[in-house]
Amino acid sequence: MNQPKEVRTGGRSARVQESIHSAVRQLLKEHERANVTVPMVATLAGVTPSTIYRRWGDLNVLLADVALERMRPDTEPLATGSLRGDIQAWAEQYLDEMNSEPGRNMMRDVQSSPTKGTCVQILGAQLRIILERHRGHVDQLPDIDRLLNVIVAPVVFRILFAEAPLTLEQLNEQIDLALGQ
Amino acid sequence: MNQPKEVRTGGRSARVQESIHSAVRQLLKEHERANVTVPMVATLAGVTPSTIYRRWGDLNVLLADVALERMRPDTEPLATGSLRGDIQAWAEQYLDEMNSEPGRNMMRDVQSSPTKGTCVQILGAQLRIILERHRGHVDQLPDIDRLLNVIVAPVVFRILFAEAPLTLEQLNEQIDLALGQ
Repeated sequence: MNQPKEVRTGGRSARVQESIHSAVRQLLKEHERANVTVPMVATLAGVTPSTIYRRWGDLNVLLADVALERMRPDTEPLATGSLRGDIQAWAEQYLDEMNSEPGRNMMRDVQSSPTKGTCVQILGAQLRIILERHRGHVDQLPDIDRLLNVIVAPVVFRILFAEAPLTLEQLNEQIDLALGQ
Repeated sequence: MNQPKEVRTGGRSARVQESIHSAVRQLLKEHERANVTVPMVATLAGVTPSTIYRRWGDLNVLLADVALERMRPDTEPLATGSLRGDIQAWAEQYLDEMNSEPGRNMMRDVQSSPTKGTCVQILGAQLRIILERHRGHVDQLPDIDRLLNVIVAPVVFRILFAEAPLTLEQLNEQIDLALGQ
């Protein structure tokens, strides 16, 4: 009983987490998110509500955790043959995904997460894959923070706080600016 | 009874709105926001809950409305004598304000607003005042969207989704980029 928590990940604890995540995903398909409760998740996952409260504290943190997990892309960014092309394909897909109902919900949930920094890590990892493909073939690679600040940030900002999302033309202007073109 | 709603603004309707806004501001000082309810606001403002539901639909929209109202700055942006200086002073103050507990709450509320575009309008109006000061003295003025996308967006994005806000150094890099320097 004195084992540190980490020892248990990968075993029972990982299975419990997966069944709770999976219950949340299923409930979000069938219900308005405002109607989903911790007891509903617990019943469907076959655990007690206190298991959920102990691990996540409250429902918002659990939803944020599921949202972050969903954010991890299944596939590598598309390879188009050029740095500009790879970034553009990735950014257009990102704009498209975030500008959807699930994308907006995900952004809302992730803001409640105590580990919201994971968001930038996941995006940064995707961009790093693209940059590494072109290392040695491009004079000067932009840094990840520049790409996040100049391309990702306005996509997210406009979706959350403006009347309309970035147009593809505006997105391309931001890409040019980030790549110094 | 057939008068259009607009006729009444500025009179009784404006006074009712102000007393409801003021009740919200007072309650948010005294309570956790999760504990503030429509009946509490109604009691303090001296109206019935249905007055609030009729006008705002639900508490989130009312909170968003109050947050947008608070966002309107009381004063013009500081005049430092140069375009770069004015933008920098404004951006540093904006970063500071948004990176506070009230700033974060405001951003969270505004996202629920059906008129969240007001956010970009208010920021745009402030930036326009700065640009107009320097019209004729600067070769080419940047456009407002460029300033919003390159300076404001990463400030907001990093506060909401990263481990840490932009540093002043990073903010200055964004300002240089936006001004083409």
